[in-house]
Formats: sequence, C-alpha cells, structure tokens
Amino acid sequence: MKALVYGGPGLKSWTDAPDPVILNPTDAIVQVDTTTICGTDLHILKGDVPAVQVGRILGHEGVGTITEVGASVTNFAVGDRVIISCIKSCGHCTNCAVSLYSHCLGDEGQSGIGWIFGHLIDGTQAEYVRVPYADNSLHKLPEGVPDAEAVMLSDILPTGFEIGVQYGQVKPGDVVAVIGAGPVGLSAIATAGLYGAATVIAIDLDENRLQQAREFGGTETVLSGAADWKQQVLALTDGAGVDVAIEAVGIPITFSMATEIVRPGGHVANVGVHGKPVELHLEELWIQNINVSMGLVNTNTTPMLLKLVAQKKIPAEKLATHHFTFNQMLDAYETFGRAAETKALKVVVTRS
Amino acid sequence: MKALVYGGPGLKSWTDAPDPVILNPTDAIVQVDTTTICGTDLHILKGDVPAVQVGRILGHEGVGTITEVGASVTNFAVGDRVIISCIKSCGHCTNCAVSLYSHCLGDEGQSGIGWIFGHLIDGTQAEYVRVPYADNSLHKLPEGVPDAEAVMLSDILPTGFEIGVQYGQVKPGDVVAVIGAGPVGLSAIATAGLYGAATVIAIDLDENRLQQAREFGGTETVLSGAADWKQQVLALTDGAGVDVAIEAVGIPITFSMATEIVRPGGHVANVGVHGKPVELHLEELWIQNINVSMGLVNTNTTPMLLKLVAQKKIPAEKLATHHFTFNQMLDAYETFGRAAETKALKVVVTRS
Amino acid sequence: MKALVYGGPGLKSWTDAPDPVILNPTDAIVQVDTTTICGTDLHILKGDVPAVQVGRILGHEGVGTITEVGASVTNFAVGDRVIISCIKSCGHCTNCAVSLYSHCLGDEGQSGIGWIFGHLIDGTQAEYVRVPYADNSLHKLPEGVPDAEAVMLSDILPTGFEIGVQYGQVKPGDVVAVIGAGPVGLSAIATAGLYGAATVIAIDLDENRLQQAREFGGTETVLSGAADWKQQVLALTDGAGVDVAIEAVGIPITFSMATEIVRPGGHVANVGVHGKPVELHLEELWIQNINVSMGLVNTNTTPMLLKLVAQKKIPAEKLATHHFTFNQMLDAYETFGRAAETKALKVVVTRS
Amino acid sequence: MKALVYGGPGLKSWTDAPDPVILNPTDAIVQVDTTTICGTDLHILKGDVPAVQVGRILGHEGVGTITEVGASVTNFAVGDRVIISCIKSCGHCTNCAVSLYSHCLGDEGQSGIGWIFGHLIDGTQAEYVRVPYADNSLHKLPEGVPDAEAVMLSDILPTGFEIGVQYGQVKPGDVVAVIGAGPVGLSAIATAGLYGAATVIAIDLDENRLQQAREFGGTETVLSGAADWKQQVLALTDGAGVDVAIEAVGIPITFSMATEIVRPGGHVANVGVHGKPVELHLEELWIQNINVSMGLVNTNTTPMLLKLVAQKKIPAEKLATHHFTFNQMLDAYETFGRAAETKALKVVVTRS
Repeated sequence: MKALVYGGPGLKSWTDAPDPVILNPTDAIVQVDTTTICGTDLHILKGDVPAVQVGRILGHEGVGTITEVGASVTNFAVGDRVIISCIKSCGHCTNCAVSLYSHCLGDEGQSGIGWIFGHLIDGTQAEYVRVPYADNSLHKLPEGVPDAEAVMLSDILPTGFEIGVQYGQVKPGDVVAVIGAGPVGLSAIATAGLYGAATVIAIDLDENRLQQAREFGGTETVLSGAADWKQQVLALTDGAGVDVAIEAVGIPITFSMATEIVRPGGHVANVGVHGKPVELHLEELWIQNINVSMGLVNTNTTPMLLKLVAQKKIPAEKLATHHFTFNQMLDAYETFGRAAETKALKVVVTRS
Repeated sequence: MKALVYGGPGLKSWTDAPDPVILNPTDAIVQVDTTTICGTDLHILKGDVPAVQVGRILGHEGVGTITEVGASVTNFAVGDRVIISCIKSCGHCTNCAVSLYSHCLGDEGQSGIGWIFGHLIDGTQAEYVRVPYADNSLHKLPEGVPDAEAVMLSDILPTGFEIGVQYGQVKPGDVVAVIGAGPVGLSAIATAGLYGAATVIAIDLDENRLQQAREFGGTETVLSGAADWKQQVLALTDGAGVDVAIEAVGIPITFSMATEIVRPGGHVANVGVHGKPVELHLEELWIQNINVSMGLVNTNTTPMLLKLVAQKKIPAEKLATHHFTFNQMLDAYETFGRAAETKALKVVVTRS
Repeated sequence: MKALVYGGPGLKSWTDAPDPVILNPTDAIVQVDTTTICGTDLHILKGDVPAVQVGRILGHEGVGTITEVGASVTNFAVGDRVIISCIKSCGHCTNCAVSLYSHCLGDEGQSGIGWIFGHLIDGTQAEYVRVPYADNSLHKLPEGVPDAEAVMLSDILPTGFEIGVQYGQVKPGDVVAVIGAGPVGLSAIATAGLYGAATVIAIDLDENRLQQAREFGGTETVLSGAADWKQQVLALTDGAGVDVAIEAVGIPITFSMATEIVRPGGHVANVGVHGKPVELHLEELWIQNINVSMGLVNTNTTPMLLKLVAQKKIPAEKLATHHFTFNQMLDAYETFGRAAETKALKVVVTRS
Repeated sequence: MKALVYGGPGLKSWTDAPDPVILNPTDAIVQVDTTTICGTDLHILKGDVPAVQVGRILGHEGVGTITEVGASVTNFAVGDRVIISCIKSCGHCTNCAVSLYSHCLGDEGQSGIGWIFGHLIDGTQAEYVRVPYADNSLHKLPEGVPDAEAVMLSDILPTGFEIGVQYGQVKPGDVVAVIGAGPVGLSAIATAGLYGAATVIAIDLDENRLQQAREFGGTETVLSGAADWKQQVLALTDGAGVDVAIEAVGIPITFSMATEIVRPGGHVANVGVHGKPVELHLEELWIQNINVSMGLVNTNTTPMLLKLVAQKKIPAEKLATHHFTFNQMLDAYETFGRAAETKALKVVVTRS
C-alpha cells in the first residue's frame, strides 16, 4: 500500500509500505478513506518528538472502512464505516477504568500513553491501518455524516471540548476567552455553548482568524497585538476577569496571557502543546484561587460530539478548508504547513 | 487597650491602641481571649506585604467573647464565645454567592479580598477587635473545646483542608504526598482522611517534623534531603506517582517537587505562600492531564471542622506547642520566629 | 395602598391595605411596578395551603423600584430598579451557607423556608412590599430588560432551570423529556440547552402547548394522550430511555410516566407541586440506578439567568401571554385561572 | 464437578454438573476456592426471580484460581489468584463507557444487566466457573488478604459503599443513618468514614445487630422498635434531620423511615432489594430538596476497597461469621437462611 513515511527530521515521502496485519485478537484493519494532518505531525517532522522512529507511518486521524477484525472484536464487523479515534484504549487498565484513556497502559509496550498512531505504531496517513483495541478505539459512522466532518472527531473536536471546555469547567453564563483561534481553539469556541457559555471571546494575532472565530460561535474578538488587548478583554467582563481562559497556542506568552485575564476563582485550561517551560507567577496567583488544567484528549466524549455533528449542532464542516486526494498528500502537507498564508484550518485528504 | 502594632519593616511593639468601636450595623466587637501568630505575620514584619500600613494591629486568628453587636447582627449576642475566622465575608457579593469568601468584595474598600484582619483593618493580636460582617465571620464556640484548639480553626486547619485536601480533590484510596510538615502541612495531613486517603506521605527536610507528621496521621515519611527522595515516594505508589501532591512550603523547589511526583490524571494543590515565580514544565506536563490548584482559604468548612475538633477526630491540640500570655506577646513572636530551633508549630497567646 | 388580599378559601379582593414599613435593618421597601400570578396562588385560594392566614397579601413575583432601605442594606439604594426573588435568604444560616436558600432559617419566625412572600408575610400583588434580607433577595435590573421579561426571573425561570435542568443533571448530548408544557415546563425546555441537551421532548395532553414548546426550544413533541406515547418517546432515544425526565405537572400519573421512560443511570427531576403521595415502583426501579430529585427553587442562578435574558438567549418574553393593570387584578386572576381556555402562560400585571 | 444447582422454587442440590469451558476469547475459567451466599440466592430459591432457569448453578461471589484464559485475555494468566466480581463488564458498551457496569450491555444475550452469575449464566457456588470479560470482571488478589475477607469484595462491600455511601453523597462532617444492620448495611457503616462521616447511626430492630454495628464503625444506635425512634434519631442531629439516610432492608416501612428522618437538602440512598412498590410522600417531600438514589452495584470501586481491606482499614473479616466447606454447602444455606437465630452475617464456604 501507499503511506506517508517519516524519514527522519525534515524527511517524509508518500511511498510503498507493507500492508498492516492483525497482530492481536482485539485488532481491526481499517481501509482509510479520509485522513488529515495535525500540527503534531509537523512537530514530528521537525524532529521534536524523538520517540518517533524512522520508517514510521504518520497520522492519527482518520475515517475508513473495516476490512478485517480480530477474534475478540464484538462491536464491529467487516464493512463497517468508522471514525478512528486518535487515542486507543484497552478499556480495562487502571487508567481506562477512570476514563483516563489518554494514559491507557494496555498496549503492547505498556507505553502509558493513549496516543500511539503515527507515534509508537504506524498511523492513518496510509491506505490501511491496524487499529488496536478496536472495540474501544473506533466509532461507527452514521449515515449522513460526511467524511470531511467525521474526521474532525478523531482528535480536534474532542480535544477542544474536553481539554478546553470540560477541563476549564465552563458553566452556564460564563465568560470564556479562547487564546488562539486555530483549529483546536475554534473547536473550543464551537463547543463552549454545550455548557452554556454566555460570552466567548476569541483572542488571536490574526484578524482573519478572528473573523473565522465568529462563524464558530465566538461572540467577541480581541486582537492580541493591540496594546490594550487585556483592557479590551476585561471590559467584556464585570472587571474581575474571565471565568475561563483557554490557552490554545502552546507558547509561554499565551500561557501568561491566560493567567493575567482569569478572575479569582476562575480556570485556566491549557490545550496548547508546549515545547518550553513557562513562568507561573505564583507570587501573585497563589492567592487567586485559580485552577490550571492541562492534558491530552481522552476522547470519551467522541460519541456525544458525533451525535451533535450529525444533528448539525457543531459546524464541523467549517474546519475543512482544503481538500486533497491521497496522491496529493505532499501538497496537503505543504498547504497545511503554510497555514498563515493559505488560511488552512484542516486539510482533508481522501482516498480518491 | 494593648495591641501588637506594626511600626514598619522590622518594627513591632505591644503597646497602647484605641479601643475598637462599631462602624457598621453588621459589626461586632470581640474581646480577644486567645490569639496566635501566623507565618504571614512574619512576612508583614519583613515588609513583604506593602498593603499593611504603619500603625496597623496585626493578627488574623483568635478566639474571644462578644462585647457589643451592631444593629443588624442576628446570629450573635453579647457574651457569646466565638472563633474569629481569618476571612470576613459579607454573604451577598458575587463571590460570596459562590462561597468564594476569600475574595469577598463587600468590605468598606471593596478590596476584593476576604483576608483583611491585620492586613487592611486592625487585627486580633489585641485585647479587642472589631469584626465586620459578624453574622458570617464568627463561629459560636461550643462548650468543651479549649481555646488552644479552637484558635486553630481561625485559619490553619481550614487552610490545610480546603486548599490542600479539597482543592487537591483527595478521594478514597488515594496516595497523598504533603511537601512541608509545618502547621499548614500538618493540617492537610490531619484532614486527608476525611476523604479517605489511604496513604499519606509527609516529605520534609527535618526529621523532627517527620516524626510530628506521624502523630497527625502521616502513614509514611520521606526526608527530602535524601538523594533518592523521589524514588522513595514513587515506591510508595504503583510506580506512576501520587494521586495528590500538596505543596505546603511556598518556594520554587518544593513546587517543582510536587509536579515531579504526581501521576497522570493527578492533582497538585499549592497551599504555600510564594514570593517568587516558579517554572512550570509545560513541555513535559501538558500531556500529563494534571491539575494545579492554589488559593486563599474560604473558611466555609470551619463549622464542619469545628464539629470534628469537638469530637476529638482532628488532633488540633497537637498544633499548640508553646503557650504565652498577652504581656509575653513579643516572646511569643521570638519563639515562633525561631521555629526550627524551638520546634514551635503554633504559639498560643492568651489573655491571662 | 391597594393589594390583593386573601379572605379565606375562595375569597380574594383588590382592596386597601396598610403600607409596609421597614421592620429590620436588612429590609427594603419596594414599589411594585409589575407582578404576576403563580399556580401556587390558585392553590392558596382553594385553601390548600393552611399556613396562609386570612388578610395575607398574596404574590411572590415582582419587579419594582426601591423606595426605602434599612440601615444595613449596602447593595441597594432608593430608586434602584429590582427583581424581587420569590425566595428570601439571610445569607448566613446553615442552609444559606450551602446555597440552600429554599430552606433559609433566618427569618423572623425561623420558618425554615425561603418562600415567605404571599405565604408567611405579605406579598407582591400590591403597590408596595417589604423585602426582608434585601441584599440577598433582590437583583438589580439592568437597562433594556422589560419588566414583563424580568418578572419571569422571580420564580418561573429559575425553578425550571434549577429544579428541572440542574437537579436533573442534564449534560451535553442528553435526551431530555419534559412532562407538562406549562410555564415551568417551558422554562425547563428553554434552559435545557444551557447544559447542552441535544434532544428536548415536550410531552403534554394539549396540542396547543406542544406547539408552544417548540418555540421555547423543544425539538420533539409527544401527545401524552396517545396510546403509544411511551413508544414514541423511546423511539427518540437509543431504545433504553431518556437521560433525564422532568416532571412539571404535579400529579401521580405524570410522576409515574417519568419513571417509566428514564434509562438506567438516568435522572427523574420532579418540579411539580404535588398534593398526594405517589407510588414509587422500587420493586422494578431499585436495580435501575436512577436518581429522583425534587425541591423548591433556591434562586441562586437568577443573576446568571438574568444575564442570558438580557442577551436575548432565553425567550422570557414568550411566557408573557396576557397583560393587565393593577386595577384589573381580578381579571388577571380570572384569565390565569382558565388557562386551558385562554391559553395563558403567565399574566403580567403592571402598575399602569 | 460439584455445584449448587437450582431445581425450581424451593429446590436446590449440591450435585454433579458439567465443567465450564471457554466460550469466548475474553473468558477465563476459575477454580473457585471460596464462595458465599447472598440474600438474593434465597430470593431465587423462593422463585422470586423468574429469569433464573431450572438447572442454573447459583452464586455470584467468589475467590479462586485461574485455570484457563481465552485468547484475548491479557491482564490475567493461569495460576493467578482472583476475586470474581458479581458484575461482569465488557468495558466498551455505552453503559460501561460511563462506568455503569451494572447495566453492561455487552454479554451474549444483550441482557442490559451486569449481574449474570447465578442468574443468566452459571455462578460461583461450584468447583469451577466461567467468567466472561475476565479482563474487566476479575481482580488480582494480593498476598496477605485471606479468602474470607476477599470474598466480601465480590459484592457486599462495594454495594454498601457505592449504592449507600457514594450514591448518598456522604461528605465530611455528615450525620449518616443506616437503616438495617445486616451485611450490606454494615458494609455502608464500615465505609461511611471514607467520606468523613462524623456520626453514623445504625437503626435496626435487633439489639444484637446494633452491637455488631458498633464494631463496624457505627457511632450511635437506635432500636427501630422504640416508639420514639424518630425523636432519638433527630436528637443526634441539629434537629433538622440526617444528611444521608441509607435504606438497607428493602421493605416499604424502612424506605418511609428514611424519607422521614432526612433533612432538607439531604439524600436518601436506597440499597435494599425491594419486592413491592413504596409510597413516596411527594405532597410533603416535593418542597424538601431531597434526592432519592437507588441501584445495583457497579463494582468500579472494588480495586480501591481491596487496597483498604489489605491495609486493614475496613474490617472485612468481621463479616465472615460462619465457615463451611463445599460439601457442607447445604448446611451453609441452612445457617444463612436462619440468620436471625444463628446471628450469621456472611457464611464462608471453602473448597476444603
């Protein structure tokens, strides 16, 4: 089959790779119909994720059709159309028992991490992929949900919702600020209303992204380049700060911004993937009764979000800004890699 | 009356001061029978808390007898024996409405902070003190609870319980580590069992404090000076880390220690009062699904803790290591200031 | 002044009554600009609420203007436009301390009930009313919210939201059934989305009310007179039942309906005011892991709901179906009493 | 092998039965070393549970040694000593996904019930038993926990804790009443302290059981035959009622007692298995803001409780009052069936 294979820092190719086979009775083989590219894939290609070995097939998002199931798979059958979750979960380790699928221990190497596709095992940017713990890691795709929407449920929508909105403990009437209006920030914006956020402030350096934020449910926008950005945000609250500040960029300055605008008793939900330490101003914050959360998505809300996407209550389709076929995989990477210029949110790559 | 008056950095005296009077109908005047000294008082005396003006009477902990009540006080009457909470709360501002008394807005200056005694208004290290919002800021002292135990309910016990145990979301069966076995750390240790902690690890540099920790309910102890301190802690878990790490010191190194020993999905509860920023290793922690809490006590659990102290279920008496009278106030400060040598936890200072 | 005075079972008059005066320093006097009638008022007039004495002024909902405040009222001043909450709360009793304002102990008679207007003290269907604990029992009315919308925040909207939606623990993606599409049921329907309900099924005997339910956010409707009503409801779920069943009628049959359609692990939230015991089929339900809640509104969500009404996110105006002036108070009662014919939801009665 | 076989109402025998075999790759075969008898087994023998077919091997509690595992079992191996949970859970159905294992859908017949041993499939009162979904339904038994303690973790301890203490939302400082001091009531009493209950009142008709209750952690006892039983209970509270009332009998009168002694804002947790409807006095309770929970155990707390039993923090050994060997199985039933006379709590039946 063809697949996007990592060749070491800076190197990738759409090339031949062996077809995957069932290794364990809980596995399924899925023909990938649609996949997409994540910012994490770009990090891997820079060499920032040393656990990824040369020769690894990348990708952890996908929609496809089951072609084979292991002996103990009971929920799925050949021919089923499925969403592949970016997180595998065995369903019975101590972490899965408390729905902490992000730290599932149950895989072959006892990695302690639920994200293994395109990381510790071959991923979804390929014609076929082996899915471990298929009963827990796949979701049946109902009729009427297009692949381009469904693929947003592999990672981006649950990440914005779980790590942003749920970990941020958004509650009815809240003022929520989302710093960074990229795909994951927009996913948080699009789902903040599920807990009744009254005001959703999008904060970004890019005016274009702020416009997009409004289409996803942002009620207010603030340009973070403005000298008075903080005053603008506070003016949208009762003066004491936002109830929830969601960091969706992953650099020190945006994390600091989140801690500066949150009210006493409020929440900072870090969603960004960071590469450096940040300075936490405990000398000011210790007395503020704030809470700082962070984490990798568990994907336990995927079935619920799928239902809402099917009901057209979450605008998943707006995340899919560019479309390619498998044999244009390198073009897709190129477009996604220059998102600031191409205005790409998510690039959708389909079998044909 | 006599009172402990702040004279600027490094200066304090037990001297004459005007008797307090009722300023608002919600005030009460309390004759202080017993008070104590907090680490915060030492910080103030170093000049670290610039909001404290010269001439301020210090102290935010106390037990006493009501001598006068304002016109709208309905819960208390002259002669009532009371615990003075270190936090005043108006009971109706937006923060009080959500039990965030630590950030009560309702005082005269709209300070936005519940802690005003010995800070923004005169405090409890005096023969008499004015208590604003008496209906919400005092607690009736039942017969049979000695002053020396009751005074631990002004601040130290609720702080350890609320900011350590509750914010840390301790749950039945948990492994809890408490870094720093001073009064507030011991308060967390003594109350971790209220949510069923199975293992409580005390971590401190001082072997003497670790011995004390065992008397407060610590089940394990680790000397933090040991080269393998971290391995010792992890060996007391399933290898993945503690469920809850409570920081009760207030310096960068102990905060870092907490983030190093917490398991994926676990909680870091900062109780320490910090004077400097800390480095938060988001480049490693973003994926760990941990939660970092911090804050000033709300004291909404004081009535519950008082009940348990009255039932002898919390060893409050063990916190009272040294006893003085009001005219020995400066000696009390001296003993508390050299706690490492004197082995003082809390010094109890009584009227006579 | 003029007021609606209870004259014993079946008897009421719009007649002269003494002007209220400040009795306690926490009181305010409010000139009532707009009031409305509740089903409870009809119950009182039937003689079903024996605690109501002859001569009592009825009514517990209202919007008005403050004309006088007691000495310890700090949040409000003469001239402020306010919503009068149907629940008074002292803010410092043991029940208020845990936001259980519905059972506030702090009034004169230690009634243990937060609802006293038009019940234990004179109410709001009058030109003026005395409001105890004004700081906690009034809410400032922002510019731009008409009285006819604001008055729905005295009781009906918080009741539907708190006792229906919150006690029912509605969560994102849920299928929620509301049995009874009267004012309180419609309030639950209108606010179920604040916790992300995906499907809201209105169930009623009256086709007209089901039509109204759709305007308040109901996504599905089922006529409860239909022989297959239950099958219709289950067909809107995955077959196992609804996540949350909200009872908003108050008779045994509708309570039973709620327990029949709820899924294992689901919630029955009783909002209806019942006059008779109900049969709870524990011989079938004990194994179903359901939860049954009930209660009087606490009104602690009123400020949040007010914000959403001001933002036009809750269609409060649609509850106001009929309008009267004070001198038409008896007509207002007559119209509301024949709601099935007049199609009245709430009748709004204004000063002029 | 030998097994206790149901022969229809009133009929049972310890007789030959076919050895179980692996049917699915997720199965394990366990040699039963220790089992016990539950009140439910007696109900089945009376014919009260029609789903149980003639020929069924009874029993849903047991401790044993694995003799064979299916191809996809990864957590367990032959020779492992295990506790058999009374609830099987597939780990991936919609109910298991939210830890509602009690309603696991994933078994062969899609029964929608987690309890199938000795009910829908052959049970544990036998020399060997087939365990479906072994990875999720077994728990490794650590060294040092005797079988007679471990077998209490199959059902009785998690039932008392989850359905009594957790569903009852016990919190630190609470006054908890447990009506019925049989094995399940004693399990609730023994675990109420895990959430910091300050006062635990055992209520029973039998003075002997009340004595036992004190050994399990009951702090107060009330004879339910006393004319003033209710006054006695209320006198142990602040007068308003208990915070949590746990019903552990299963008849209408004890359920009513629970609703009579609970305070406004409190919780009634029904643990009893009921055979008849109960009357719920909604005409009085609708305004009381109470919550009524009920359900079958999920057993998701079994690992945590096992840890506490291993630490000797739960007195599991005191539940084991009588001991038998497999060939005395009928004697064991006889002793357990006359518990009032024999004072049996749980009878422990071992292989030899």
